[in-house]
Amino acid sequence: MSQNSDIDILVSEVGPRDGLQSVKTVMPTEAKKQWIADLVAAGVREIEVGSFVSHKLLPQMADTAEVVQFARQYSGLFVTALVPNLRGAEDAFIAGVQKITLPVSVSEPHSLANVNKTHAQLFDEVRQIVEHRNHFFPDVQIEAGLSTAFGCTLQGVVEEASVLRVARKMAELGVDEIGLSDTVGYGTPVQVRRLFQRLQEEVGTLAGSAHFHNTRGQGLANVMAALEAGVTTFDASQGGIGGCPYAPGASGNIVTEDLVYLLESMGLRTGIDIDGLLEARETLQRGLPGEQLYGFIPDAGVGKNFHYAGEK
Amino acid sequence: MSQNSDIDILVSEVGPRDGLQSVKTVMPTEAKKQWIADLVAAGVREIEVGSFVSHKLLPQMADTAEVVQFARQYSGLFVTALVPNLRGAEDAFIAGVQKITLPVSVSEPHSLANVNKTHAQLFDEVRQIVEHRNHFFPDVQIEAGLSTAFGCTLQGVVEEASVLRVARKMAELGVDEIGLSDTVGYGTPVQVRRLFQRLQEEVGTLAGSAHFHNTRGQGLANVMAALEAGVTTFDASQGGIGGCPYAPGASGNIVTEDLVYLLESMGLRTGIDIDGLLEARETLQRGLPGEQLYGFIPDAGVGKNFHYAGEK
Repeated sequence: MSQNSDIDILVSEVGPRDGLQSVKTVMPTEAKKQWIADLVAAGVREIEVGSFVSHKLLPQMADTAEVVQFARQYSGLFVTALVPNLRGAEDAFIAGVQKITLPVSVSEPHSLANVNKTHAQLFDEVRQIVEHRNHFFPDVQIEAGLSTAFGCTLQGVVEEASVLRVARKMAELGVDEIGLSDTVGYGTPVQVRRLFQRLQEEVGTLAGSAHFHNTRGQGLANVMAALEAGVTTFDASQGGIGGCPYAPGASGNIVTEDLVYLLESMGLRTGIDIDGLLEARETLQRGLPGEQLYGFIPDAGVGKNFHYAGEK
Repeated sequence: MSQNSDIDILVSEVGPRDGLQSVKTVMPTEAKKQWIADLVAAGVREIEVGSFVSHKLLPQMADTAEVVQFARQYSGLFVTALVPNLRGAEDAFIAGVQKITLPVSVSEPHSLANVNKTHAQLFDEVRQIVEHRNHFFPDVQIEAGLSTAFGCTLQGVVEEASVLRVARKMAELGVDEIGLSDTVGYGTPVQVRRLFQRLQEEVGTLAGSAHFHNTRGQGLANVMAALEAGVTTFDASQGGIGGCPYAPGASGNIVTEDLVYLLESMGLRTGIDIDGLLEARETLQRGLPGEQLYGFIPDAGVGKNFHYAGEK
């Protein structure tokens, strides 16, 4: 948020990564670039533009390096990418990302399904990634995104103590930020509020973003709870596309369009223009013909009584 | 809530009225009865079973008296109906309702569109209804539901002072309860919290239920805000069916299934069983073949970490 003193909440668009990895259609590179250009024009300050993973596993992400280089032309944009391992981190650093997000599953069954690693193996990988960053790319930030922090379709309940233990481990390993991901949409407001509060107690200013899926329709209610707990960065995806290919039952992210409407109407400045988002959404839809997009604001429009935060 | 000391929040099912009046299909009377029976079996304590209006205008509601009489067999159920005028109130009292809800539009343009009455005419009608009740049916409760309390597609902004003035007028006229309705889905959490707080300051214990539509996807976020303001009764409809035929752009109510999941997961007892709701939903769908039903919980199911309030 350091370069964003004119906004209250950072909405981090994860559609180009979390969304596009979850749909079968491979969006053409030029369409991705146009979508990102539209998002920037709408005022979006941070975009997770892709994932540095095996092209064989996720061909939708094969052009991530090129997309990163494109996105870096926008000085007001913070360009991030998902990275599951050291190899991906090396590629991401070379491509020029400003932040990498490491998915760290609190549920070990999900960790094995997602990145084929036990916790011990995963923590060792994080250690190597941080060392590599420290030596060669000291300006790039590293975020650990604690997946399945609110429960797991494979494991069921995920104990809060486990979440906090993994968070503390990440802090010890030297990451810059620790976010909580509700990978499969199990999160509920009381849990969200308490766990973010406990995360802040555990790791202080390293406590980071909230990444919610709207699988059970509770996404914006969870945002309300996270706001109460002091969270200032929210992941969201345009059209609510998204889901985890290795978490059964995971479905879309909270919808950027609806989230921005919620925040602005609450008096919280995002810097994002809703009309601009709707234009970007058209580009997204053209790039993914036939894919279902979600969200209420695109259909209903803003209310006649709506005004942006700061406008009166 | 007097007979409901074992629950924390009263979920009032309005689908048989607000939902069925908004769809073109006329649900057969026997199907309505089965739906109500299923809702009662699921633990629902209050149902708005229909509307006493012109059969010509809303043929979907023509059997409301019969449905009221059917519903009254359930001793644990509180049976309510919508009533737009004295004529409807007389019919409702005779049919045996335990509460009537009078829609009172804070927006005068909406009042004219909805019931063809100015405020002066509408207030006079309420006065007559209360007098009639006091003389002949003193045990029946009267709720004024303040429509367009959070904004109006016709008028735009609705001033909070106007809402409070109408609320005070209703209190003076002798209604038992005053609820706030977000008829067209303009409500936002900050507004919801503040307006319910001001309503309580204005009319004390007469402050009643929250009736939210999910037109802009903000429904459950608004529930969060209303809970903070101390609201303990929420209207909702199964499958999110609903809308106002005389308010352009009005769409469905908040979804009962998703609301109950939210409340129970927050530790707030509703007395309602989600599996039972899903059975009732099947009856609803059979009675309205081809109609679109909404909601996330019916598709996704509850999370593996879910438990009802009070269960540990």
